[in-house]
Amino acid sequence: MSLPPAGAGDVGLLSPVRAGTPVEAATGDQAWLQAMLDAEAALARAQASLGTVPKEAAETISAAADAGRLDVRALALAARETANPVVGLVKAFTAVVAEADPRAAEYVHRGSTSQDVFDTGAMLVAGRALRIVRADLARTGRALARLAAHHRDTLTVGRTLALHAVPTTFGLKAAGWRQLVGDAEARLAAVQEGGLPVSLGGAAGTLAGYLEYAALDNDNDNDGDGDGDGGGGGGGGGRVDPGVYLDRLVDAYAAETGLARPVLPWHALRTPVADLASALAFTAGALGKIAVDVQSLARTEVGEVAEPAVEGRGSSSAMPHKRNPVLATLIRSAALQVPALSAALTQCLVSEDERSAGAWHAEWQLLRECLRLTGGAAHTAVELTEGLQVRPERMRTNLDMTGSQIVSERVAARLAPLLGKAAAKRLLTQAADTAEATGRPLAEVLARLPGLPAGVGGRLARLCDPAHYTGAAGALVDRALQH
Amino acid sequence: MSLPPAGAGDVGLLSPVRAGTPVEAATGDQAWLQAMLDAEAALARAQASLGTVPKEAAETISAAADAGRLDVRALALAARETANPVVGLVKAFTAVVAEADPRAAEYVHRGSTSQDVFDTGAMLVAGRALRIVRADLARTGRALARLAAHHRDTLTVGRTLALHAVPTTFGLKAAGWRQLVGDAEARLAAVQEGGLPVSLGGAAGTLAGYLEYAALDNDNDNDGDGDGDGGGGGGGGGRVDPGVYLDRLVDAYAAETGLARPVLPWHALRTPVADLASALAFTAGALGKIAVDVQSLARTEVGEVAEPAVEGRGSSSAMPHKRNPVLATLIRSAALQVPALSAALTQCLVSEDERSAGAWHAEWQLLRECLRLTGGAAHTAVELTEGLQVRPERMRTNLDMTGSQIVSERVAARLAPLLGKAAAKRLLTQAADTAEATGRPLAEVLARLPGLPAGVGGRLARLCDPAHYTGAAGALVDRALQH
Amino acid sequence: MSLPPAGAGDVGLLSPVRAGTPVEAATGDQAWLQAMLDAEAALARAQASLGTVPKEAAETISAAADAGRLDVRALALAARETANPVVGLVKAFTAVVAEADPRAAEYVHRGSTSQDVFDTGAMLVAGRALRIVRADLARTGRALARLAAHHRDTLTVGRTLALHAVPTTFGLKAAGWRQLVGDAEARLAAVQEGGLPVSLGGAAGTLAGYLEYAALDNDNDNDGDGDGDGGGGGGGGGRVDPGVYLDRLVDAYAAETGLARPVLPWHALRTPVADLASALAFTAGALGKIAVDVQSLARTEVGEVAEPAVEGRGSSSAMPHKRNPVLATLIRSAALQVPALSAALTQCLVSEDERSAGAWHAEWQLLRECLRLTGGAAHTAVELTEGLQVRPERMRTNLDMTGSQIVSERVAARLAPLLGKAAAKRLLTQAADTAEATGRPLAEVLARLPGLPAGVGGRLARLCDPAHYTGAAGALVDRALQH
Amino acid sequence: MSLPPAGAGDVGLLSPVRAGTPVEAATGDQAWLQAMLDAEAALARAQASLGTVPKEAAETISAAADAGRLDVRALALAARETANPVVGLVKAFTAVVAEADPRAAEYVHRGSTSQDVFDTGAMLVAGRALRIVRADLARTGRALARLAAHHRDTLTVGRTLALHAVPTTFGLKAAGWRQLVGDAEARLAAVQEGGLPVSLGGAAGTLAGYLEYAALDNDNDNDGDGDGDGGGGGGGGGRVDPGVYLDRLVDAYAAETGLARPVLPWHALRTPVADLASALAFTAGALGKIAVDVQSLARTEVGEVAEPAVEGRGSSSAMPHKRNPVLATLIRSAALQVPALSAALTQCLVSEDERSAGAWHAEWQLLRECLRLTGGAAHTAVELTEGLQVRPERMRTNLDMTGSQIVSERVAARLAPLLGKAAAKRLLTQAADTAEATGRPLAEVLARLPGLPAGVGGRLARLCDPAHYTGAAGALVDRALQH
Repeated sequence: MSLPPAGAGDVGLLSPVRAGTPVEAATGDQAWLQAMLDAEAALARAQASLGTVPKEAAETISAAADAGRLDVRALALAARETANPVVGLVKAFTAVVAEADPRAAEYVHRGSTSQDVFDTGAMLVAGRALRIVRADLARTGRALARLAAHHRDTLTVGRTLALHAVPTTFGLKAAGWRQLVGDAEARLAAVQEGGLPVSLGGAAGTLAGYLEYAALDNDNDNDGDGDGDGGGGGGGGGRVDPGVYLDRLVDAYAAETGLARPVLPWHALRTPVADLASALAFTAGALGKIAVDVQSLARTEVGEVAEPAVEGRGSSSAMPHKRNPVLATLIRSAALQVPALSAALTQCLVSEDERSAGAWHAEWQLLRECLRLTGGAAHTAVELTEGLQVRPERMRTNLDMTGSQIVSERVAARLAPLLGKAAAKRLLTQAADTAEATGRPLAEVLARLPGLPAGVGGRLARLCDPAHYTGAAGALVDRALQH
Repeated sequence: MSLPPAGAGDVGLLSPVRAGTPVEAATGDQAWLQAMLDAEAALARAQASLGTVPKEAAETISAAADAGRLDVRALALAARETANPVVGLVKAFTAVVAEADPRAAEYVHRGSTSQDVFDTGAMLVAGRALRIVRADLARTGRALARLAAHHRDTLTVGRTLALHAVPTTFGLKAAGWRQLVGDAEARLAAVQEGGLPVSLGGAAGTLAGYLEYAALDNDNDNDGDGDGDGGGGGGGGGRVDPGVYLDRLVDAYAAETGLARPVLPWHALRTPVADLASALAFTAGALGKIAVDVQSLARTEVGEVAEPAVEGRGSSSAMPHKRNPVLATLIRSAALQVPALSAALTQCLVSEDERSAGAWHAEWQLLRECLRLTGGAAHTAVELTEGLQVRPERMRTNLDMTGSQIVSERVAARLAPLLGKAAAKRLLTQAADTAEATGRPLAEVLARLPGLPAGVGGRLARLCDPAHYTGAAGALVDRALQH
Repeated sequence: MSLPPAGAGDVGLLSPVRAGTPVEAATGDQAWLQAMLDAEAALARAQASLGTVPKEAAETISAAADAGRLDVRALALAARETANPVVGLVKAFTAVVAEADPRAAEYVHRGSTSQDVFDTGAMLVAGRALRIVRADLARTGRALARLAAHHRDTLTVGRTLALHAVPTTFGLKAAGWRQLVGDAEARLAAVQEGGLPVSLGGAAGTLAGYLEYAALDNDNDNDGDGDGDGGGGGGGGGRVDPGVYLDRLVDAYAAETGLARPVLPWHALRTPVADLASALAFTAGALGKIAVDVQSLARTEVGEVAEPAVEGRGSSSAMPHKRNPVLATLIRSAALQVPALSAALTQCLVSEDERSAGAWHAEWQLLRECLRLTGGAAHTAVELTEGLQVRPERMRTNLDMTGSQIVSERVAARLAPLLGKAAAKRLLTQAADTAEATGRPLAEVLARLPGLPAGVGGRLARLCDPAHYTGAAGALVDRALQH
Repeated sequence: MSLPPAGAGDVGLLSPVRAGTPVEAATGDQAWLQAMLDAEAALARAQASLGTVPKEAAETISAAADAGRLDVRALALAARETANPVVGLVKAFTAVVAEADPRAAEYVHRGSTSQDVFDTGAMLVAGRALRIVRADLARTGRALARLAAHHRDTLTVGRTLALHAVPTTFGLKAAGWRQLVGDAEARLAAVQEGGLPVSLGGAAGTLAGYLEYAALDNDNDNDGDGDGDGGGGGGGGGRVDPGVYLDRLVDAYAAETGLARPVLPWHALRTPVADLASALAFTAGALGKIAVDVQSLARTEVGEVAEPAVEGRGSSSAMPHKRNPVLATLIRSAALQVPALSAALTQCLVSEDERSAGAWHAEWQLLRECLRLTGGAAHTAVELTEGLQVRPERMRTNLDMTGSQIVSERVAARLAPLLGKAAAKRLLTQAADTAEATGRPLAEVLARLPGLPAGVGGRLARLCDPAHYTGAAGALVDRALQH
């Protein structure tokens, strides 16, 4: 056995649901590093817009903020020393900036703290990933809308507790799937449009470091007494009002990053991460529902749908005849993971003090995986739903296989006013048992029953036709599609 | 050992966080049974409003819908036979109605299915519980707002990774807690106001049973041909348009229950349950953050806060001197449970077919526990926050215990323009080490350093006063309280 | 709506998987209270055996230790004041003892702490519950062994990724189920036989309180100087060697309770609870595998097995013809809950200090639910497996439905040496596609292929018979049953 | 922003707990690929030992089984087509073998299936990782044993529910940590020594493909009738007894891989994975307990321990004075993740049919993360425990800070026989309140109490010395260290 090269990365071998999908690249280590550098650059520009950092320094910093110039593996290793990758990043990035202009290097990460940079970077990554996921959900939703409209009246079996229940339509099933996808998209949109916030708190959420540097710069500019702050709230030079500077700096940082402005620094108030976690878990679960339905319908004995046929897709290493429902399998693999990861993220709400010694650090990989698995599942769902093969003829065959037992509810309803509800149900239960045991159609069994009220017999054939017992399925599809 | 009586219920012995709280009663087996009966009664009235059920029958059914008249333990036992409690409930309830009027009994659960009744009942329970939880969150939020305002400028230690970081104010800490509580309330409100929906789908989500009875009743009224439905969507008599009847029935049912109208039947589209799960997990987590902070601050060595003193509260079975932070402990016990329960609920989104054989059934107890633990935690949080004892003098003592190391960030910032950022940080790190090792105040250590730039020395005492380094804490409190 | 009576208990309405099962009673609030009283009584007897408590007092305490004499609801409510039910229990129980003999009342809970009593009670409950669960698993295992032996050679479809793969036997499937049940039993047995331990630590795990009373009693007996302890380890009177007394007390307590002796007090070393959690999660998961297989095989289109037919069992509130797989549904509902609950329990390993302010408290309800849901599932599995209806004829029908595609692997193997492995697989893939598209049997399609090597044709019919391609299924069953 | 390079791997940037640790390399994509190739090679050799594959072919295959010769990213991408990476691996590896010898290429993956190769590879990876983890646990245990022995009698504060409870020793605390680490090691050892099994089932667990090729090879050798299998169990040529061949092949495969022989193929019987999951979750939780204790003791106000001082370690990006407890933080970050991941793995026990369409696929990344986070935590724990700085003087200072309230339990015990248990506890509660309110030592407050029995007063100073109230702490350390 040859040893793996030190630091060789993981490239998705164990996670085919996302290997090669756009969300994978958008959430990888390189992308995360870039987002943190974007945060550093945006901070410098925001400070420059307030006069706290020279414009040229901010420009130099922005120009240098290129992940390609840093060694991401070295940063990962250095992160063990400080429990986060930002301390090392600041050091390495400062050196890169210093190469361009040593004076600008003094303004890197000015007044800042690791968590501001990391969390702002994380929100940038999340925002970029959500755009990809939402676009894929939108495509999936459109594909499902087409299926629902096309199969509005395609008769199929409604199944409950694994058994044939009553007839329904494939359109209604597809409309339900679309509804879930729409719910998922709405939840992700609420998180994204509600605003993924910048993180700007400084060492313990008071922005004191930022204010100190601002006062200092004012000092330097004005040669004044930089320590003329008064009162308990005072953080810096006499000319820097903390509230005013706070508002301006957060607004400028939000504008530079395209993120939202939070009410308070959120180092230990983890609402944004918990919101992402729950919306992503919902999305993965919603897609998982579609996947298990497709698998249930694709079973060899059922055969009502098949995954899109693609050369080589779904092949087995052993069995030449198989075309496995691999897309549904991939989606389901994500749905089995994300809710658990999301729960772990939600628990990180319980973050002690002004910054947790562990809960914050536990979030990072969990959040990335939630974004990535869900994004991979959404990408896979596009392909699954756009190419799903639907077989109405198999649906009809299956519908008929119980010899009309599937409409026993209806016949019971018809007999209820004549025999009483309980007696009618008893009669049908017996008839269904007989039909099951003898293999004869329910209508035929019923026709021979002595207790059958006069006048019902003649209608039995029509009553027992599944096509006439789909209730409001069509109307429901119409309403859902207008939604 | 005497054997426990058969069927003796659980009364909260293992769950003090909710024992005796209002949410406990609102979510108990009796309350759940009552809610399901409320659903049956509302359904009958809704059908009566459309003429499908006689008004008097609906009135009789409504009058009989009293949980006290059924044996909840017998229903629990019967539920094993059918995997849900509704089949037995319908039978027992029908008998109760029949005692009053046998004709009315024919109209119980007319065209309905177990899941419609159970899920509508569950949403009624959830709605009732949420009102309680939200009121408690609102009270908690107000108590925290008072704390934040009162302690806007109360100097305290900002702690990160378990250590003193920089100064902050207790007001800012309380404002952060309030922010989380407000976030929780907003998430619960979104779920409740977005609409907890009625469940109305019939056997497999097409409402066919409801429509069949409607057609039948039309038939009977009109002596017409009840089977004159046309086309694939037709479910009932010729005079019942499925879409029109669907709209009217769902609207009437929603009106009778006070719940919302869903776009589609949701037997296997579990958005409402997943939404509840995530909002409740968020709430429990948010309250858990407050709890661990209170515990951290109540530690004997820290002593900055104490729980409200109540005779007998917090006593230990062994140690007379202890007054344990029991309220925070109870809240934290909930926060450690709800996210995991919520994840299991979220996974139930993966519900196969038109009704799952297991995922639906797994939800019930999980949902109840999420409501109950979170509600218990919120109730406990009211007491904790309304009575929290805050000790500014201990905060000040603690703040001073490191001899100004807590403002090392500030001094480093001041020295940065004079020495360069990196050199300044190095100097401070050394000085802090010396201060730590010798126990001398940082200002004193710094004053003796040979490398200290001229002009800084004179300001050291003021620079090192934590009271002058709270950044924008006060302004942040102001902004948060306006929010 | 009538209000539920205050304090009305939960009786299993939302948890049919365990309603009325033996494990439910063994884990109810009454049973838990009794177990804690058993712990108090055993402690008194253990102390009496060392002369620290008068024999008569221990007898009086033991006689009074009857849960029926305490108000469990009152204890639940009182638990909110102290965050655990033991403080109130000790008070109420002391009063009960005092009624019999006020002198004996002085010896209740002597030197003890809440957690010792609660945790010892919890281990008693767990031990009692495990005996029930294990007996049910053993019965389930025997039923599955009978099925495996009886159907050793019953031909059936092997399914992978939802599709027909290659033939197998029902015996091998049943042997696999039995294997999992055996694995579960072995894991529970390891926990139980490895020893559920007594809890005996006193206030913070040093047993100081127990030793203090022992020294005191020695003092009193001897009128000596009770404070003559020397050195750091000394806890009590001169005549009580801490190590010796420790050993004797723990041994006596273990003997009185029938529990094991732990190496160290485990107030904050939660190995016993984590071990229970993981063994129970395993068991629930193992039973869940059987449940989903039964559901998969019971699907209307598959019909290879059915749940035991019992009058009224599995009936639907709407559909007279259905006989729902309710036992599998109940089992699956447990399997969807227990792993999440178990994870929350495992997280409670992270218990800070000498006793956690929350993690311990979070365990109680989670542990009870894990015991109860798993026990209910095991009880249900007995009924499911002892009465499972197996339909070999449907298995054969299903096996033939793909026209021998199910043996395409075999044919490919046969052709590999003649055509090369890759070419053989390609040939079979094409033939399977043709068979699928035309509906003709694979053997027939193959027979007409131009590329088929001479000499293979004649064997095709035999090669394509699924009955001749079950590999080592029979031998595997034999080996598994010997295991 | 520069786009990340396509397929750039993740190198641990978000997971410092394992970045650069040995377990990271042992579980990376390259290592996993190598393990799967090791499985293919071992299979060929096993088959060769039975004469089913030519010895030279097995040698060629073994020589070619080098992950460095395959493109792991290409395999990851190809895995999307088949939902697992083995189909692509077999193709690519066959080509590599064919370069060496086209005849040998015919024997790659002979009769096998993707899951056999993947799962055998996974067990190889797990075994290799467990060896690393266990060695680190053993070192951690030894470091803790040294701490326990050295501090056997070092007086410290016992804390419960966040407050000072009674005295204990640091040795007992360290012995408890060691106990948990030993428990973890024992659980991992049980899994590893109980035997991580090879996977050998063929397409659906009957080994039919393996037997078919064996029969075929026999055929070819003997020019006999390869289809002379009889009976239901027959899989191949007349001269291959399925049971005998099964036993020999599994034994040979186990011998070649160094893994264990399972009772049955376990494609859908996931005991090995569930066992790994629970042992790893236990380990992460056990280490997490140590981490939170270290953090609790390292708090600035407590200061009883500090992490090993290493140049640059624990530095903050903002605050020069901080030396963050980064090792404990990293460990805790793992403890917050692994139980949730483990629960998701345990749920995968619910694997339908002969191979799940999703549950199997969900396991891969979860298992890797469990191994890696736990292994990283164990590696970090070595460093933490070997270098932990213990400060007995701070412990003593803290112990004295409540003026002997910490021994109130003892004084209450002493007074109990004189005043009655209840009255004694009341007296002490009052005295403790007075001591708390006035800041006077408990002994002094007690001495002035009118109700104090004669004869107690003289002993008060001694009674109130925490050093004389450590119970059996020393003896417990001795016993634990012998264990």
